Amino acid sequence: MRQFVFEDITADEVARRAELYTPLTNSVRELVDATIRTEVDPDTIGAARELIDRATALLRAQQCDGPHGVRYTADGTGMPWGNPAIGIRNAIAPPMVVTRDGDHRRVADVVLGAAYEGPPGLVHGGICALLLDHILGEAASAMTGTLTLRFERATPLGPVHLEAAVTGTDGRKKTVRGSLSDADGITVTAEGIFIMPRTFDDPEGSP
Amino acid sequence: MRQFVFEDITADEVARRAELYTPLTNSVRELVDATIRTEVDPDTIGAARELIDRATALLRAQQCDGPHGVRYTADGTGMPWGNPAIGIRNAIAPPMVVTRDGDHRRVADVVLGAAYEGPPGLVHGGICALLLDHILGEAASAMTGTLTLRFERATPLGPVHLEAAVTGTDGRKKTVRGSLSDADGITVTAEGIFIMPRTFDDPEGSP
Repeated sequence: MRQFVFEDITADEVARRAELYTPLTNSVRELVDATIRTEVDPDTIGAARELIDRATALLRAQQCDGPHGVRYTADGTGMPWGNPAIGIRNAIAPPMVVTRDGDHRRVADVVLGAAYEGPPGLVHGGICALLLDHILGEAASAMTGTLTLRFERATPLGPVHLEAAVTGTDGRKKTVRGSLSDADGITVTAEGIFIMPRTFDDPEGSP
Repeated sequence: MRQFVFEDITADEVARRAELYTPLTNSVRELVDATIRTEVDPDTIGAARELIDRATALLRAQQCDGPHGVRYTADGTGMPWGNPAIGIRNAIAPPMVVTRDGDHRRVADVVLGAAYEGPPGLVHGGICALLLDHILGEAASAMTGTLTLRFERATPLGPVHLEAAVTGTDGRKKTVRGSLSDADGITVTAEGIFIMPRTFDDPEGSP
């Protein structure tokens, strides 16, 4: 089990790395979209694939062993950059940029394109679940125990807004409520019980 | 709103397209992983990015307008290839390959790597939610109304097994139960109410 990793680097170094990796990941996001939507001929697909494999070989020349993990600086700045909801190094993530609104409330605005489509023109329900699970977990600073989602209506692809707030605490358990909305109002509501890990060094200590 | 699209193509043509797009998307999946894990120097990252942008430009020379949609052949074969859980053209999808086990039960085995990591070494809870939402929806052949997930314990990255089965039907509503497991047993259980769309041409007719 890979643990949380502490790195003794400055805020400037964190910013430098973010500036290095963000454009790379954004390029991969564009490629993911283009791969879904392309209608070019087989030869052109072959040529694109060759370029992609060359890029992968360049990047793999030196890489971490196993997954990215969650890294923290000595001052506690988190770098969850491999995360599939918010990771600036993970092209699966839109990425959702979560803003703090006090200790127990979080908000985010995300634009969801072709890569997040379930039914035609609509966001996949499981993508709504992924983003809601994540933002509720951030509001709680805890891991998911239970999560109940209610899909009020379909969510069209495009800009969506997410909110989450802690509504109760009982020992290591927090109750969190949240929602996902489009311009016309709430499309999905969420409620969950989140469990605080016993310590950072023992992520398996939480259910 | 893009509708479900019917294409009058043969099974051979579907197979030809699957063989064309699968290796391309697999190359993009490798690139997503390499982008998360790379530790190469900034110049090499720049060189990789240039190759990626060239590949994207090749693919975008001819592309569909908007998202992929869900396409069906005249005989009803579905091509949900842009789907973020199962799409063979969507690098976000592992992809999960869902197997029918009778009309109302579905199973899948998936290997989840670095791109699906939440806490260090563990599958992001929201990714468990995405895959469970999808497989429960397939078992029901319906859209999610409500979904309740219970995280019994953390799910390590690596091979996971999913199951879903319809346990009850009431008009257009189906109750579906499922689970996600690792080699040691169930890590997440799911129960949902899924709603059958009124017609294929009216996906907004369902909640």
